[in-house]
Amino acid sequence: MNKYLQTDPWCIIEDGFHVNRQLASESIFSIGNGHIGQRANFEEYYSGETMQGSYIAGLYYPERAERGNWKNGYSDTNDKIINAPNWTGITVRLNDDRLDLAEWDVQNFKRVLNMRDGFLERSFEAISLKGHRIQVSVKRFLSMAETEVGAISYAVKSLNYEGRISFQPLIDADVKNKYTNYNEQFWTVLQTKTQQDVSHLWAQTRRMDFHVCAALTYVLYKNNEQLNVNPTKIEKEKVAGFSVGTDVKIGDTVCLNKYVAIINSLNHPREELTERACKLAKAAKTKGWNHLFEEHTAVWAEKWLQSDIIIDSDMEAQQAIRFSIFQLNQTYNGNDSRLNISPKGFTGEKYAGATRWDTEAICIPFYLCTSPQSVAKNLLLYRYRHLAKAIQNAQKLGFTDGAALFPVATFNGVESYNEWESTFEEIHRNGIIAYSIYNYINFTDDTNYLAENGLKVLIGIARFWAQRVNISSETKKYVVLGVTGPNLYENNVNNNWFTNYMAVWCLQYTISCIEQVKQNNFRTFEDLTQDINFSNDEMFLWKDIIENMYYPQNKKMGIFLQQDGFLDKTLTLAADIPESQLPINQHWTWDRILRSSLIKQADVVQGLYFFEDKFDIETIRRNFDFYEPLTVHESSLSPCIHSIVATVVGNKQKAYELYLRTARLDLDDYNNDVAEGLHITSMAGTWLSIVQGFGGMRVKENKLHFNPQIPEKWNSYAFNILFRENQLNIQVEKTKTIIQNIKGTGIDLFINGKQVHIKEESKEEFKI
Amino acid sequence: MNKYLQTDPWCIIEDGFHVNRQLASESIFSIGNGHIGQRANFEEYYSGETMQGSYIAGLYYPERAERGNWKNGYSDTNDKIINAPNWTGITVRLNDDRLDLAEWDVQNFKRVLNMRDGFLERSFEAISLKGHRIQVSVKRFLSMAETEVGAISYAVKSLNYEGRISFQPLIDADVKNKYTNYNEQFWTVLQTKTQQDVSHLWAQTRRMDFHVCAALTYVLYKNNEQLNVNPTKIEKEKVAGFSVGTDVKIGDTVCLNKYVAIINSLNHPREELTERACKLAKAAKTKGWNHLFEEHTAVWAEKWLQSDIIIDSDMEAQQAIRFSIFQLNQTYNGNDSRLNISPKGFTGEKYAGATRWDTEAICIPFYLCTSPQSVAKNLLLYRYRHLAKAIQNAQKLGFTDGAALFPVATFNGVESYNEWESTFEEIHRNGIIAYSIYNYINFTDDTNYLAENGLKVLIGIARFWAQRVNISSETKKYVVLGVTGPNLYENNVNNNWFTNYMAVWCLQYTISCIEQVKQNNFRTFEDLTQDINFSNDEMFLWKDIIENMYYPQNKKMGIFLQQDGFLDKTLTLAADIPESQLPINQHWTWDRILRSSLIKQADVVQGLYFFEDKFDIETIRRNFDFYEPLTVHESSLSPCIHSIVATVVGNKQKAYELYLRTARLDLDDYNNDVAEGLHITSMAGTWLSIVQGFGGMRVKENKLHFNPQIPEKWNSYAFNILFRENQLNIQVEKTKTIIQNIKGTGIDLFINGKQVHIKEESKEEFKI
Repeated sequence: MNKYLQTDPWCIIEDGFHVNRQLASESIFSIGNGHIGQRANFEEYYSGETMQGSYIAGLYYPERAERGNWKNGYSDTNDKIINAPNWTGITVRLNDDRLDLAEWDVQNFKRVLNMRDGFLERSFEAISLKGHRIQVSVKRFLSMAETEVGAISYAVKSLNYEGRISFQPLIDADVKNKYTNYNEQFWTVLQTKTQQDVSHLWAQTRRMDFHVCAALTYVLYKNNEQLNVNPTKIEKEKVAGFSVGTDVKIGDTVCLNKYVAIINSLNHPREELTERACKLAKAAKTKGWNHLFEEHTAVWAEKWLQSDIIIDSDMEAQQAIRFSIFQLNQTYNGNDSRLNISPKGFTGEKYAGATRWDTEAICIPFYLCTSPQSVAKNLLLYRYRHLAKAIQNAQKLGFTDGAALFPVATFNGVESYNEWESTFEEIHRNGIIAYSIYNYINFTDDTNYLAENGLKVLIGIARFWAQRVNISSETKKYVVLGVTGPNLYENNVNNNWFTNYMAVWCLQYTISCIEQVKQNNFRTFEDLTQDINFSNDEMFLWKDIIENMYYPQNKKMGIFLQQDGFLDKTLTLAADIPESQLPINQHWTWDRILRSSLIKQADVVQGLYFFEDKFDIETIRRNFDFYEPLTVHESSLSPCIHSIVATVVGNKQKAYELYLRTARLDLDDYNNDVAEGLHITSMAGTWLSIVQGFGGMRVKENKLHFNPQIPEKWNSYAFNILFRENQLNIQVEKTKTIIQNIKGTGIDLFINGKQVHIKEESKEEFKI
Repeated sequence: MNKYLQTDPWCIIEDGFHVNRQLASESIFSIGNGHIGQRANFEEYYSGETMQGSYIAGLYYPERAERGNWKNGYSDTNDKIINAPNWTGITVRLNDDRLDLAEWDVQNFKRVLNMRDGFLERSFEAISLKGHRIQVSVKRFLSMAETEVGAISYAVKSLNYEGRISFQPLIDADVKNKYTNYNEQFWTVLQTKTQQDVSHLWAQTRRMDFHVCAALTYVLYKNNEQLNVNPTKIEKEKVAGFSVGTDVKIGDTVCLNKYVAIINSLNHPREELTERACKLAKAAKTKGWNHLFEEHTAVWAEKWLQSDIIIDSDMEAQQAIRFSIFQLNQTYNGNDSRLNISPKGFTGEKYAGATRWDTEAICIPFYLCTSPQSVAKNLLLYRYRHLAKAIQNAQKLGFTDGAALFPVATFNGVESYNEWESTFEEIHRNGIIAYSIYNYINFTDDTNYLAENGLKVLIGIARFWAQRVNISSETKKYVVLGVTGPNLYENNVNNNWFTNYMAVWCLQYTISCIEQVKQNNFRTFEDLTQDINFSNDEMFLWKDIIENMYYPQNKKMGIFLQQDGFLDKTLTLAADIPESQLPINQHWTWDRILRSSLIKQADVVQGLYFFEDKFDIETIRRNFDFYEPLTVHESSLSPCIHSIVATVVGNKQKAYELYLRTARLDLDDYNNDVAEGLHITSMAGTWLSIVQGFGGMRVKENKLHFNPQIPEKWNSYAFNILFRENQLNIQVEKTKTIIQNIKGTGIDLFINGKQVHIKEESKEEFKI
């Protein structure tokens, strides 16, 4: 844990310059708008430790895969998020002295991420080696309204300096990616060009032929008066921009507003990129800072209305949940089914920026509850659009007849991750993708989606499971060999309970969906069976598997076994590991982790979370009580799920303890890894642990259910749910719950198991 | 299978130029002398496909390990055999036309590896694009007597050409390694210098500071008369040598004899390398071709006397076994305990040229039986010298108190291989290193070695096992979790029978050695216990493990289980896999291999081979009959062991079938991989399958035992055994065995279980 930030309900605040935390701050203070994301790198030159990161949604680079330890079936490329040309740079000079916070003396440094309005602000005083003192204030945002536009306002006030102050606002394509294997450069710059009022840089990725053009323009002010001075044009091989400045006296303030447009070939014709970028940058400048900013904050206001959570009397929790909601909304806006959510969002390059099963496991419920239906639907369509590639992927691994295996990590549907124990064995991802369809249909009742899109995916997945199981030579039961379950601290195990259960559930759900679609959309179903060559006979095998699956368990202890042989381990509790050896993944070798009973995230608990309805509370409790003490929660997706299950089994204290761990994971840097980026997907888990955990929200048979609890420390908390036509606000207090129907027709829902009706635009109170 | 070579008892012959097999031929026709090795690259320029390979024993390069998929505990470097400066090059020109077999028309090509005398010969006619026709004969060898010297005789006869023929004998350091990750260049050339009569190149590896100097001199002949013409000196950045030539008429022959000395800083002071190399090259020239060659063949004659095997009436088998013996003697000469045997010897770069457990599992018995005792002892000392590093390695993995884990692959004792399922989990290597001590002591009765060296290693290994096991929470038995056994087609399994058995055997053997050394060398033992802080109390735990180890088995079937859960697989026989999918490691993805019941090499059978005496023949048969049909033998170490066990259980046909597979693995390229190098270590297995398999040789309680069988196809076979003081020749015929005591005092031995005495220099016949 590394606490250095100030607590505030709406802001993240760094008071004083924490040089050693700069990489972490760059992650935490990231801004984004679902289309572009930007780490909190300084605008001005900085010779200290930094990880430059500007990312554009949907752009990736197919880096040549490493050949060491090669296995048949691996991809030829490891696709990676690509660090885009840096649009933020503004070099600042006092005469020839370049401002550099690593060299200059820095005082009164303050950095603020304003989450309500979605901007990053920084102010400080800096004293040059010659003793010149200036005061700097910087603000920047990436517009949520105009998602291809970013703006920076950079003001410098002279405190004791007389002379020239100049700015070099730049676009810089000389960027590297941190996680390249061969130090490859990913960009070829096609053009840098600076005209009188706009400068642009046009670049192409060395493979895939993605094109990006970033254009910048600016306005220079002195003491709030616009200056019209002739700039020097900068047109280097990989850098474009201007140099512009003016003389100041003590007390003068010069300010440069930089307007940038960043557009790419996913959304525009290549040949029009430069023209469109320049036009858009100039239009932003014409619109002006205030107008741009208002448009931007208006979008945020709407987002907060739909998704805010208010916690009374626990400011740390309040700040943390808003940080989660803020980052989730920065990362994905749901407008484009080609995009998805990577575990680090736009805040770092770890996990290569690819889509993983985090989206389906944990993010979809957040977007389902806080955004229009189309947002979650686009996340589902992402996988639907990749179905053909998932079938190819399965074929590559020896499966046939339309079986589909979705990739562990991907940008475009093709597997982009090469590690056999994950790529080939983390097959529960397929189940979770099926589960996300269930989740979506259950929440939205969008039966059309099921018939038109979902069922095809489900059948591809069901076919995979039907081929992936085998009959044990010894027990004659169906078994699932050689898997890596959600607990990644086990590899290549046999009969992972979660995976076996998920396999059967997929087959069951697919059969029930087939029946449903057959009944309600017979023509669509007929077309579909033609299309994918589906035969009803396939279901005979599926049913046999459903009936004869083997599940590892210990009857005496009344628990499901994480996998065969789990009880051959020496059972060691997480609490018994010395602090100095935590996290174990930074201190123990892999074999030691594998052999230990310590769990990264508990499969069985995850399964009981997904399938809560299928088990009695005592079974859930016994398993939770057995696995939770073995769990080190070194997956960011772990504590939130455990927190929710803790509420289910009535372990309030544990629920709150785990909530805190998930909520402030990044702000307090629990795992000592925030420098590499934020745990974006786990932020959805934080939201879940309030709404599903404390709030006890479920959807069953087209009805919302709530079973609210409240942590002792809190006076009240309130969250918002957009359920079909209804926008609801649920406020939970110590003794009562108040449900307000903000928008929509009247709604029937269940509170503590009792059906109630909340009329249109009315508010009802219930005892808890 | 790719058969293109001629059969001959003493030679490997390629008749006609098989361009598409050139890479394979480069491996097969390799020469070496235990100190230097050389693939059969052409001397002259060749623009076709080739893999240049000149290797010097003991030289390696610590290449930066790849960072993808990194795990705690991995090494920072992957050490690799390093391709040394090429000493073979002789460019040939007719005027300006450079001879190039890829471009010129080639006729009557013949390449012969003469195994008796240890040289490579090549002859062909070549017609240039201009129609000039020459006849070429080349001979080369690496001296077994002067192991730092190589010689090449290159003769060109003009068949229709008049004009100048010139040679450029070169040393070329512009060499690459095939298996580098980053295309790193490994050498810095410190000096290239050409004097009147000698030219040298001095180079240094970019890390580790190994230095090599290669010097060349030559003699030029025309029609057998020495010519004294002034050469042109070649001194380029990375190339040194001469250019020298003469005019010819039709029918003239010019011949260049190239003498090369290659010395390195492992054996000479760095500052004297150039002087010594030049001197040595010149001395070789002074000695002259014939004298050098005679010294060389004399060593081979002695080697053959000790190690030859003669097979009557099966020339393919005869050729194959000689090829194995020849390559083994080329690879390791036993003079230097810093050297060892890598799976590919000096014939390729696969497996990085590092030492693996192959040496202990399979090579040591060959050298024990066919070389002076010091040879096998040096192989043991290699590991003894690495004990401290093995202890460090174990510490890195979390073991304590002097536990030792030897590396999977190494040059210098440090682990050089990074793949968790091997590096951390193939721990049976530790057992096999212990077993090699048993093997050596059993064969030689060198109790001194045990006391002075062996026991320390054994205790380190025993300590490892004592910490590596754990008590099952469920069964309260000792278990060994998370291992990869010798069958590499399983990863991270629990309770691999072979490993569990080996662990217990190590503890037992160590205890018995402790008792023995305590009794016979008490003072040494006392010193040792001080030195390694050994307490007799450690043995309490060891004994508890010995008594309470769990062994997976199926009592109903009467078999040991390869590992827990093995019978959950669908049992598929190797014979049922379509030819088109073999070898499965080239056709199946890794997960499919792992899930299948197919076995690369059968652990259980390997265990029964090592510990034959501990099991009754019916148990061995039942296990062999169960596992052999599941085994695809895609490890080169597999068929030989299975062949031996087949003889034990009386399955003569299977024994012979498997023998053929091991014997001609490379010559007939069974696994389609000989282009990457020969399977040197498995060649010792070929030898074993005759001597231990058909010959039934064992050593029990200081006595040799033979239980000879003879394959139906053979009239007779004969092998040599150097057992302690006695040099024996054992000839097995259809109905009798003749044992000749060639050298040494009289010896008592067992034939078919009956004790007999063979007097000094006498011969005895026994019925079989």
